[in-house]
Amino acid sequence: MIPTITAFKASPDGGKGMARDMPIRWAFEEVNQPYNVRLVTFEEMKKTPHLTLQPFGQIPTYEEGNLELFESGAIVHHIAMTHRGLLPVDEQARARAVSWMFSAVSTIEPPILDFETAGYFERDKDWYDERKPMLKDRIRARLTRLSQRLGNKEWLDDKFSAGDLMMVTVLRRIKNSDLLEEFQNLFEYVARGEARPAFSRAFAAQLDVFKDSQKEN
Amino acid sequence: MIPTITAFKASPDGGKGMARDMPIRWAFEEVNQPYNVRLVTFEEMKKTPHLTLQPFGQIPTYEEGNLELFESGAIVHHIAMTHRGLLPVDEQARARAVSWMFSAVSTIEPPILDFETAGYFERDKDWYDERKPMLKDRIRARLTRLSQRLGNKEWLDDKFSAGDLMMVTVLRRIKNSDLLEEFQNLFEYVARGEARPAFSRAFAAQLDVFKDSQKEN
Repeated sequence: MIPTITAFKASPDGGKGMARDMPIRWAFEEVNQPYNVRLVTFEEMKKTPHLTLQPFGQIPTYEEGNLELFESGAIVHHIAMTHRGLLPVDEQARARAVSWMFSAVSTIEPPILDFETAGYFERDKDWYDERKPMLKDRIRARLTRLSQRLGNKEWLDDKFSAGDLMMVTVLRRIKNSDLLEEFQNLFEYVARGEARPAFSRAFAAQLDVFKDSQKEN
Repeated sequence: MIPTITAFKASPDGGKGMARDMPIRWAFEEVNQPYNVRLVTFEEMKKTPHLTLQPFGQIPTYEEGNLELFESGAIVHHIAMTHRGLLPVDEQARARAVSWMFSAVSTIEPPILDFETAGYFERDKDWYDERKPMLKDRIRARLTRLSQRLGNKEWLDDKFSAGDLMMVTVLRRIKNSDLLEEFQNLFEYVARGEARPAFSRAFAAQLDVFKDSQKEN
């Protein structure tokens, strides 16, 4: 059965692959699993039936027969657990890859989201100029440690895994700030992720959706 | 082999079980797995050998023979995958429980941590009084949806799972604010989690460590 995911009908990211369907598309491409996409508007996202699938009114969701999942980390985890290619077969290496998946969403992403959120909602506040460097320093503190751990390795563990997929996805959020460039090995790590054929196919697919949304407006 | 985790030698939470060894202890107790604890000081956490185990200089870590893991979500996941009792045997129910694990750490926890962080580092800033209600509203937006989804159910899915363990752990962080009390069913959900015998044993164990740390000072 071909699974169906949801994505923004008109992504607010301008087709840059920053929406959270991107890691799911990428994971599907890595394991050569065809998938369907159902596009939802912002209005639809905040109402049933979408809220039944995604309690927080967000994308993506995953449907396969009776199975309904949400949370991009959990969907990537499910794809990785049910296909070969994204998690090592060795139980210990698999558990380490899952450590990196959680690390991406719960250690690296929160200060990045905090910085993004301030950019959206506090840019006009008096305090923004004073808070911004604080927020960047919090991100730097995490990236410094991540950069030390990565060292000159290609991926976080021996082989590319769902942990790298999630980590590259999270780091892409700061691609257009100066932060990532301060850590040359992380910058190259993200570039290696983006150079994967599966990433390119996923990126092209989400860009097509964005281009279609522009035509309709 | 009995696994070893790390915890704060002197937890800054005053023994309230807010440190991240708490969900690991709780998970071990739920599955009746004995465990060892190695206590680390703040100084030790930021240096090798601890940094080799935990790249970000935090607790907890998990060691079992050659296996070394970090990230509380990943450690709970590993315990749940290798024991009975924290994840359903049914593959679909298991995937749904993992959705809730990721939801706890990547949808519910970030705005809560943001609120906490502001309380620590921005309390003396001119802007704190204006930001604080914004931060609380971001938490409320998430709790409103979570409360709707939980409804009058006992747990997020049919049975208590690692998803509930992680969600209760995250919600406990706002126990002492007025936020949780605004959502009666979430308040009771947290109380149900805390009433589990495994929670009580885990809580007592971390409190003993805290009491010992006080005696030495």
